[in-house]
Amino acid sequence: MSEYVAPLRDMQFVLRELAGLDAVGGLPGYEEVNEELASAILEEAGKFASGVLSPLNVVGDREGARWNDSAVQTAAGWREAYRQFAEGGWNALSCRTEFGGQGLPRVVSALVEEMWNGANVAFALCPMLTRGAIEALELCGTDEQKNLYLPRLISGEWTGTMNLTEPQAGSDLSAVRARAVPQGDGSYRVHGQKIFITYGEHDLTANIVHLVLARTPDAPEGVKGISLFVVPKFLSDSDGKARGRNDVRCVSIEHKLGIHGSPTAVLAFGDNEGAKGWLVGEENRGLEYMFIMMNAARYSVGIEGVGLCERAYQRARDYAHDRKQGVELGGASRDKVAIVRHPDVRRMLLQMKSRTEALRAVACVVAAAMDVAAAHPDEAIRHENQSFVDLMIPVVKGWSTESSVLVTSLGVQVHGGMGFIEEAGAAQHWRDSRITPIYEGTTGIQAIDLMARKIARDGGAAAQRVLRDMGAIQEQLLLAADPELAAVAARLSAGIVALRRCVAYVVEHYRSDAKSVAAGAVPLLELFGIVAGGWQLARAALAARKGLLQGSGDPGFLRAKLLTARFYADHVLAQAPGLAETVVNGAAAVLAYTDDQF
Amino acid sequence: MSEYVAPLRDMQFVLRELAGLDAVGGLPGYEEVNEELASAILEEAGKFASGVLSPLNVVGDREGARWNDSAVQTAAGWREAYRQFAEGGWNALSCRTEFGGQGLPRVVSALVEEMWNGANVAFALCPMLTRGAIEALELCGTDEQKNLYLPRLISGEWTGTMNLTEPQAGSDLSAVRARAVPQGDGSYRVHGQKIFITYGEHDLTANIVHLVLARTPDAPEGVKGISLFVVPKFLSDSDGKARGRNDVRCVSIEHKLGIHGSPTAVLAFGDNEGAKGWLVGEENRGLEYMFIMMNAARYSVGIEGVGLCERAYQRARDYAHDRKQGVELGGASRDKVAIVRHPDVRRMLLQMKSRTEALRAVACVVAAAMDVAAAHPDEAIRHENQSFVDLMIPVVKGWSTESSVLVTSLGVQVHGGMGFIEEAGAAQHWRDSRITPIYEGTTGIQAIDLMARKIARDGGAAAQRVLRDMGAIQEQLLLAADPELAAVAARLSAGIVALRRCVAYVVEHYRSDAKSVAAGAVPLLELFGIVAGGWQLARAALAARKGLLQGSGDPGFLRAKLLTARFYADHVLAQAPGLAETVVNGAAAVLAYTDDQF
Repeated sequence: MSEYVAPLRDMQFVLRELAGLDAVGGLPGYEEVNEELASAILEEAGKFASGVLSPLNVVGDREGARWNDSAVQTAAGWREAYRQFAEGGWNALSCRTEFGGQGLPRVVSALVEEMWNGANVAFALCPMLTRGAIEALELCGTDEQKNLYLPRLISGEWTGTMNLTEPQAGSDLSAVRARAVPQGDGSYRVHGQKIFITYGEHDLTANIVHLVLARTPDAPEGVKGISLFVVPKFLSDSDGKARGRNDVRCVSIEHKLGIHGSPTAVLAFGDNEGAKGWLVGEENRGLEYMFIMMNAARYSVGIEGVGLCERAYQRARDYAHDRKQGVELGGASRDKVAIVRHPDVRRMLLQMKSRTEALRAVACVVAAAMDVAAAHPDEAIRHENQSFVDLMIPVVKGWSTESSVLVTSLGVQVHGGMGFIEEAGAAQHWRDSRITPIYEGTTGIQAIDLMARKIARDGGAAAQRVLRDMGAIQEQLLLAADPELAAVAARLSAGIVALRRCVAYVVEHYRSDAKSVAAGAVPLLELFGIVAGGWQLARAALAARKGLLQGSGDPGFLRAKLLTARFYADHVLAQAPGLAETVVNGAAAVLAYTDDQF
Repeated sequence: MSEYVAPLRDMQFVLRELAGLDAVGGLPGYEEVNEELASAILEEAGKFASGVLSPLNVVGDREGARWNDSAVQTAAGWREAYRQFAEGGWNALSCRTEFGGQGLPRVVSALVEEMWNGANVAFALCPMLTRGAIEALELCGTDEQKNLYLPRLISGEWTGTMNLTEPQAGSDLSAVRARAVPQGDGSYRVHGQKIFITYGEHDLTANIVHLVLARTPDAPEGVKGISLFVVPKFLSDSDGKARGRNDVRCVSIEHKLGIHGSPTAVLAFGDNEGAKGWLVGEENRGLEYMFIMMNAARYSVGIEGVGLCERAYQRARDYAHDRKQGVELGGASRDKVAIVRHPDVRRMLLQMKSRTEALRAVACVVAAAMDVAAAHPDEAIRHENQSFVDLMIPVVKGWSTESSVLVTSLGVQVHGGMGFIEEAGAAQHWRDSRITPIYEGTTGIQAIDLMARKIARDGGAAAQRVLRDMGAIQEQLLLAADPELAAVAARLSAGIVALRRCVAYVVEHYRSDAKSVAAGAVPLLELFGIVAGGWQLARAALAARKGLLQGSGDPGFLRAKLLTARFYADHVLAQAPGLAETVVNGAAAVLAYTDDQF
């Protein structure tokens, strides 16, 4: 079975032509970042992804993680792979150098993250969750907490988790009931049950650092009475030496549809004396902190979607080249041909490929904006980039993950009957993908966030800025006077009109009629993603044309970029006007249905 | 866990208002068929589906079928259920009475079949394949073959299989290599390996009747040298008494993504002396016969899609009523509400419900046309109905099954995190659904059939007739002068325009540029399905409005029908113009990509 291969050429193209690596390299703190360095990192990461993580993907799927009396054993080879991962410094790529991180910009680490997810999404979840814990502690930990936890989390010696969900509190975290009782010595005793805790228990490291949402005794009800606590699996000295087991135990792990390699734990806190924990930041501001972490985690789940798409595409493409079936349509020869010759197989592969490249480009452009928002000396520029990032995170999360379900499904379809047989591997990607539109906020939650907080709240200002940037690209396409680019321009133009119409609709109606607007929120998110992808592929096509005219770069690759933009325009962007109709007119029946008519 | 409940009210509505049960009841041979009889059958079938088949669905998924030394054991309870199924006469519902069938019209048996599939699709596959064998033998078996096999297959005492696929011959059956050597006594010895044989081996019955494609020694190459043979697992006297094991053995079964309860066998024919078989029909016409059976099987797989959609909808609806999370959007109360109150959950449920009802209506209208095509005294009417059936079978198969993947995926999504946990049951429907767009001809194969044989070959005549019927319904919607129906009319009108444009495009370009047309074949099939569904839901809305005006029927149900048509128009039909753009303009990049650019 073929292993994942990092799509280095496309990644380098995106970094150079679309995400503005040069500009990121000019930011304070990133002076050493340039194309050469980025390429060296991507190449090394690609080797690790192909050589170590990818072969373990199917092992994790088949063996799964195993629970036995509160301990969890990961699949064969996973401990050793994790050890190599941490030793290689991969855990700490974009973490601050102060505590041992490598301080690389997000635009580079995002592509490396895509590789981990392309090779083995169940494995990649572990460092992803650890990064969330690192961010929470960096943001609002005490110096003591930082000194104890950050070096160990950043090195990968320990891992981190996010403990939000309880049986009655899923998308609605206001219903959290776990409680934390102060002990008078600065510590708390935490009691309660948390579910769906990714890597909540495992055998990869000596300790696990749980970040837990819970209520203090006098906390107000609802979201404003939730605090954040750090609760390690093993208590320790300030130098990290173990000082006994904390009162938190894994009572079971879930039997899941996919990502079998990653243990999803039910954790019982405080079944005995109470799990010892310490407040992180201020009391009752836990949800606020968690949302800061969550934004980063949502972006990362979007990257999971990109990685899954790439992996599914590679497998389907290889199969389509290998599998012979049927003769060339309309040809004279009766020789069997590889199925990649059949128009419908090509169509499926191009749906997969064009979406994958669009997702990657959008995600990378957003990552570059994160870097600018964090490091640019000009406050206005930082602010503008941050508002772009805030706007786009629900789009990256929601659209990449929904696309991954679609793309991995096409991967199954390209395989025909073999796609349904687990040994072929295509089915695992599809099963693995299905969690991504659910965790870290379902697509519905992302869409409400996009509509309410990211579009309606600022009166559509951030969205209008993006629409203007899109319009400028559409003009450049027309100015090129190239028939391929003109065809793309026409679809992009219709897409921009559709999106602008919906943004105006949301701004105008959200305050007076939130329910109607909410009924179209997911179609709006899909529309936003599709048009954003078309925008970035149009930029890619312009860059490719320039390269072809200048004779720089591989002409086959650059011509493919032009055709990919064209395909995406006719097969994906073409849906934009219909989606706008649904957003603007689709609420009537949704709201008129009575509950008992379902 | 809740069990499947047959949607009797909608089924009765479809029979009465859309499929014209009265007209079918007026056909020769169906004189006793009326609403009362149909309702009685549907009610009894519904009880069997809920009480016997539905509880075994999860058992089949968890235990799977087990292979041991050429024998296959089905999951606990399955043998007893099959015994009851056969004893209840369910196997023979639409079979001819001559050999023990009940001779019911297809429009009734199709709905019963939907129930089996809604309750337990892996179980339903067994009688579905048996029916295929029955049809082949009815069509072209000798009297001896008919007398031996038909009574036993129709009663369910034995089951049947279709043996087409070989490792190198999947979608392309011209590559079949299995060979059959005449023995001079009217029998043949069959040698070869067949794969993906559904219920190719099991413990439900004493014998299994394999219908096998193979080549005789002097057969021409390609599709014109394939013959059909009947090869029983056990040889027998003419009165069915066993006379020893035939040389066909199950060498393994597949480890599949879904439908675990149904064994998918690799069968080795003739590892020793050769499997004894008998020619069915004339030599070298096997593929032709198989395609007649296959059309019936394709329709049945479409019905699998409908059943899966209904089951997924029921589960998601129940969960949405039970699960409390969050407060009412825009409401003043802080009380938690059932998630069915959230607009996006309603949107998802209505996507599921409206598609399910559209699929069911289209499938039933096609089934009624099968009955008319088979039994109407007027040859012109028979012919017209048959051409409608031929046109619609790839649509029913392709669109119902692709929709089932989408609808079951929404079922997972409605469950949030629980959707990813196998115990919740939503994931099984999604996994089970994934085979349906693949077997009995992939969606790509259906789309080529639709485009080439069903639209291009008759110059679009059959499609134009359907378009005219659709146009008449659109006019009726406008004449009703009802704002809800007018909104539906506008979308249906756009859908008809889109479909007409594509039909004209196919007719005009197929002969000169098959490849370009083929690149848009699947989007065309999707468009055809979507518009056909809109047409039938529009008819349902007209009937519902009439019922409301006349005060007949349950007003809540009828109002829901009106709203369902409206929802579907704004959320599904709205995609039609975009799909037409893809069909007509989408080929450029698909064909310009070189193989090595993938």
